[in-house]
Amino acid sequence: MNKGLLIVVSAPSGCGKGTVLNEILKDDSFYYSISATTRLPREGEADGVNYYFISKEEFENRIKENAMLEYAEYCGNYYGTPKKELEEKLAEGKNVILEIEVQGAMQVKKLCPDGIFIFIVPPSVKELERRLKKRGTETDDVISRRVAEAAGEIKQASNYDYVVVNAALEDAVEDFKTIVKAEKLKTAYAENLINEVLENA
Amino acid sequence: MNKGLLIVVSAPSGCGKGTVLNEILKDDSFYYSISATTRLPREGEADGVNYYFISKEEFENRIKENAMLEYAEYCGNYYGTPKKELEEKLAEGKNVILEIEVQGAMQVKKLCPDGIFIFIVPPSVKELERRLKKRGTETDDVISRRVAEAAGEIKQASNYDYVVVNAALEDAVEDFKTIVKAEKLKTAYAENLINEVLENA
Repeated sequence: MNKGLLIVVSAPSGCGKGTVLNEILKDDSFYYSISATTRLPREGEADGVNYYFISKEEFENRIKENAMLEYAEYCGNYYGTPKKELEEKLAEGKNVILEIEVQGAMQVKKLCPDGIFIFIVPPSVKELERRLKKRGTETDDVISRRVAEAAGEIKQASNYDYVVVNAALEDAVEDFKTIVKAEKLKTAYAENLINEVLENA
Repeated sequence: MNKGLLIVVSAPSGCGKGTVLNEILKDDSFYYSISATTRLPREGEADGVNYYFISKEEFENRIKENAMLEYAEYCGNYYGTPKKELEEKLAEGKNVILEIEVQGAMQVKKLCPDGIFIFIVPPSVKELERRLKKRGTETDDVISRRVAEAAGEIKQASNYDYVVVNAALEDAVEDFKTIVKAEKLKTAYAENLINEVLENA
């Protein structure tokens, strides 16, 4: 059996990335990699669902043992990707989705050049602004800052392999699946398949 | 508008490559690149349909003028890919299909690293042998030689980007279209699209 694909997904906030991934994850050939963090669980969050909640000491031990694929520190807390589970799932043939911001994605790219890097974008920055305003949960200042940040991130899309526009959910999900399907037809990935064709030749 | 993709397709004979391409070409976003040759038309062949039939002098002039993307000589005749038409069709946004043998494909790969290189294979070499025997048009000796040649060619599949197994026509056509669709989602190809998203940002 072939290994699964490592799929790294980034998107500016407000792109509907979560909705796209929820649809993808209905197909159980995909597995969502759960991050580890040292921050405390918020209400409603469960260990092993939203995050693996571990102590600072344990996180630092894991860093020393090279057990984190990538990690970063925000606001005094660590966040990172445990390597072991990811490798196990890939070995089982699952396509492992790593939802991660641009900096982390670029770390992973150096370590896992075989990964598939997908960047999800809104149909336009204007539309992103409209969506954020519609939510009505943030002030105009915050929205302006987030839109500017998003524009900055989208300019980094060229560091990714693929870009998926989330204009209509259904199309974005189909594009995502098309990418995964095509990647599995790559000769580098399909080596087993070529050997099967040649069997008894 | 984005340029079309240059799609180079090779396959051992007996793989049903022609049938797959006929299906693909029903979609008029694809264009089949017609080769030029100095050999005489056979009965039923028409200029500009099967080949562009040109004189040896004209072919050699075109070589000198660098008007051939690639060419080769077989049995005293030239065969080659005229560059001009191919470039025009790509500029019009058509996906241009170049059906070409392995050597020619590798020449094109050096010249056009942005091309998409697809190798079509039979489900197995055994199945290829069965298909050739079923046709009943060739002797066992010829079939053995063709099967051995096919196996040799399939070993070169790793020089291509993608492999499509023609077990069932419908699946092979879908795989082919999936590859083309995914290639258009590549950030390198979708640069215009990213710029559109950023418009007015």
